[in-house]
Amino acid sequence: MEKQDIVIVGAGIFGVAIGYHILKENPGKKVTIFEKFPTCGQGNTAKSAGAFRNVFSSKTNFLLADTSVDFYLDIHRQGHDIGLEQAGYLWLMSHSQLERNKDVLAKMQHNGVKLKFYEKEELKKIMPYLNTDIDPADEEARMMGLESIEKGVFGVKCGFVDADKLTRFYETEFKKMGGQVIYNTEVAMPLLEPREKLGLECEPLIWQDVEITGVRLKSGKTVNADKVIIAANSWAPNILDPVGIDCMIKSVKRQMFVLRSQKLAPLMKVEGFNQFNALPFTIFPKAAIYIRVDRIEGSVWASGHEHFGAPYLFEEDPKATDEYYDYNIYQVLRKYMPMFDGLKAANKWAGLYDMNTLDANPYIFETHNVIIAVGSSGSGIMKADAAGRITAALYAGRKEAELYGNRKFEVATLGLKHRNVEPEKFIL
Amino acid sequence: MEKQDIVIVGAGIFGVAIGYHILKENPGKKVTIFEKFPTCGQGNTAKSAGAFRNVFSSKTNFLLADTSVDFYLDIHRQGHDIGLEQAGYLWLMSHSQLERNKDVLAKMQHNGVKLKFYEKEELKKIMPYLNTDIDPADEEARMMGLESIEKGVFGVKCGFVDADKLTRFYETEFKKMGGQVIYNTEVAMPLLEPREKLGLECEPLIWQDVEITGVRLKSGKTVNADKVIIAANSWAPNILDPVGIDCMIKSVKRQMFVLRSQKLAPLMKVEGFNQFNALPFTIFPKAAIYIRVDRIEGSVWASGHEHFGAPYLFEEDPKATDEYYDYNIYQVLRKYMPMFDGLKAANKWAGLYDMNTLDANPYIFETHNVIIAVGSSGSGIMKADAAGRITAALYAGRKEAELYGNRKFEVATLGLKHRNVEPEKFIL
Repeated sequence: MEKQDIVIVGAGIFGVAIGYHILKENPGKKVTIFEKFPTCGQGNTAKSAGAFRNVFSSKTNFLLADTSVDFYLDIHRQGHDIGLEQAGYLWLMSHSQLERNKDVLAKMQHNGVKLKFYEKEELKKIMPYLNTDIDPADEEARMMGLESIEKGVFGVKCGFVDADKLTRFYETEFKKMGGQVIYNTEVAMPLLEPREKLGLECEPLIWQDVEITGVRLKSGKTVNADKVIIAANSWAPNILDPVGIDCMIKSVKRQMFVLRSQKLAPLMKVEGFNQFNALPFTIFPKAAIYIRVDRIEGSVWASGHEHFGAPYLFEEDPKATDEYYDYNIYQVLRKYMPMFDGLKAANKWAGLYDMNTLDANPYIFETHNVIIAVGSSGSGIMKADAAGRITAALYAGRKEAELYGNRKFEVATLGLKHRNVEPEKFIL
Repeated sequence: MEKQDIVIVGAGIFGVAIGYHILKENPGKKVTIFEKFPTCGQGNTAKSAGAFRNVFSSKTNFLLADTSVDFYLDIHRQGHDIGLEQAGYLWLMSHSQLERNKDVLAKMQHNGVKLKFYEKEELKKIMPYLNTDIDPADEEARMMGLESIEKGVFGVKCGFVDADKLTRFYETEFKKMGGQVIYNTEVAMPLLEPREKLGLECEPLIWQDVEITGVRLKSGKTVNADKVIIAANSWAPNILDPVGIDCMIKSVKRQMFVLRSQKLAPLMKVEGFNQFNALPFTIFPKAAIYIRVDRIEGSVWASGHEHFGAPYLFEEDPKATDEYYDYNIYQVLRKYMPMFDGLKAANKWAGLYDMNTLDANPYIFETHNVIIAVGSSGSGIMKADAAGRITAALYAGRKEAELYGNRKFEVATLGLKHRNVEPEKFIL
């Protein structure tokens, strides 16, 4: 392949959004995305819940998500089908959670996050099947540390997109501008070459001046490029470690389960939260256990995770297990929504979050001619548009990126050297 | 085994120094060190060059090393044989290196690092076999980017210790105070247990409240402890990842080669740098290639590494290769010291550096009842005493540690949340 101006590794939501914004700013540049899967968004993008929110305590996370969501709302209004439904997020919170999060909730509202609060009585009216009050005599519930629901905290600028459709939107627009995506092709590592080659097999030698000049594919072939951009999510360390670049992320597995039953019919039409009569993305007051409804399929998706102790582990093909649903998620669901009683998972899958364990904001930085955009920490879809614009600004050498809606963003704040972000305090 | 007050993982130099300082502060506590090797200091400690220096640009690194070296000098004066020889460090620098490092050298002197400068003519007088002037007609040297030596920058408070003897000093004192070291016993991970156990095999479940209560050995046995301290260097991520603790380090291989030959006799007695007539630890102006003399064995050790591009890779048992010496180190050595011409490595080994890729200062922090002391980035021996004192202060809950010589150190500066260190600019 002829030398590219830019090679992007990964056609997940980050990769295609980056490709789109770079080509929009640099028409005519030769940009190629390499993707190991047969089509776009088939890695961790495909495994996500497809939910979006602007409800973050970190001002940076808020700005990344808020502007990305604005862009998604805009293209949705323009008639692009990205499966967008602004159904809201509903955190069902116990008294102790409200107390713990009091300052964070106030800060987020101060920063511009639009929240609504539902009193317990309202919740009961809207969702009569919701068990807001944990029976003090329920020994199981006590053992599980379940608490009664006191309030609903509702994020307004939140909802769902179809992750696949959104990824395809960017990929299509990227291709329309002349961008190339090569599928079924895995990048092994950046291509590290001496500036002055000797033709020895053991090059580069330690006294040689080296530079990154492209990528080496798993097949052994090499492709030269003026700039390499790594948007490979959990695969990024495997690609970058071999050339001694630390992208600072750890992978953690998240499992998703699909429930199908006539019993769940009441969740398909819920009046009182939004104009669509859709159940918001709903989070229960334990172990971040959440459900979302897929009204087209008539199913409910459920997930959740421990707050501490989940292993950091990269797996090429992580698997969900029925036991994980049965012992972990189901036990909590059935206590708060007894309609789940007796239901088994009809489908399941697992993906990885590429965690920034330090502050749970993304990393976007350049080193040795490689731009790295990783660490979405499970909220990549809702920050992808901003990540694309910031990466394009970094590529262009601009100090400031302009996010959707003409909101300015200092590029260096997401880097390593001059990083300046608040650790995220509002984590599912 | 009965419940311990403290379990330390790793009897390398960090582990034994931590054990020593904790028991000194807390006589009578039950402290056990677990070590996978048959004796202490057999991991990466044994693979090091055993050199020490206080020559660091980061004020933190300087303080850690300077006080640790003071302690080693003190015990050496008291008659403990730790193989200490204050022979100095000699950086042979080219004009361009001196220019590049001008500010850093001035800053270090300002901070209290004692440096002496040797003009080229003095170097020639002391080491007539040193080729200070690269022949412009030498095509090989040009291709290798070798530059003439302009000056010697000499670190006074620098030299060698016997890494094994120093580790044994701490281990012996630790045991005298009642500390226990259990060898040939590998820790798999911290023991993560629910506060309220159900007796299920799949525990902990995601809705359980969990805590770290000790360690799980590779054998499957568990040992309870009030506090777990991880001082396992490159092995730390393998131990901590399984419970979702990010210790922020990457491993990189470093290879050491031993040369033996009558040709090297002039290096065994070098008059003009120190009272011992010992060749200082000598660094050449390319690829951090350095030599040290082992006068007891009559041999020369040599190593070096690329400044960028070395893979981050954990290996249980990394190996040195003759090719690495022949193509990388030897080529530079013979140009600056032709006496190496034709010499092959008589012995070799490899170890790992546990790199802090962000700022090359150590990490010492506590999370979820686990204290982690890692990231020595190749200078663990020369910072171990300070690391031991800081870890002991963290264990005791003190904000300030007292390093050797009554120098105060704010413990939180080496942590993740309130980290406050300068990125190290003076790297070999």
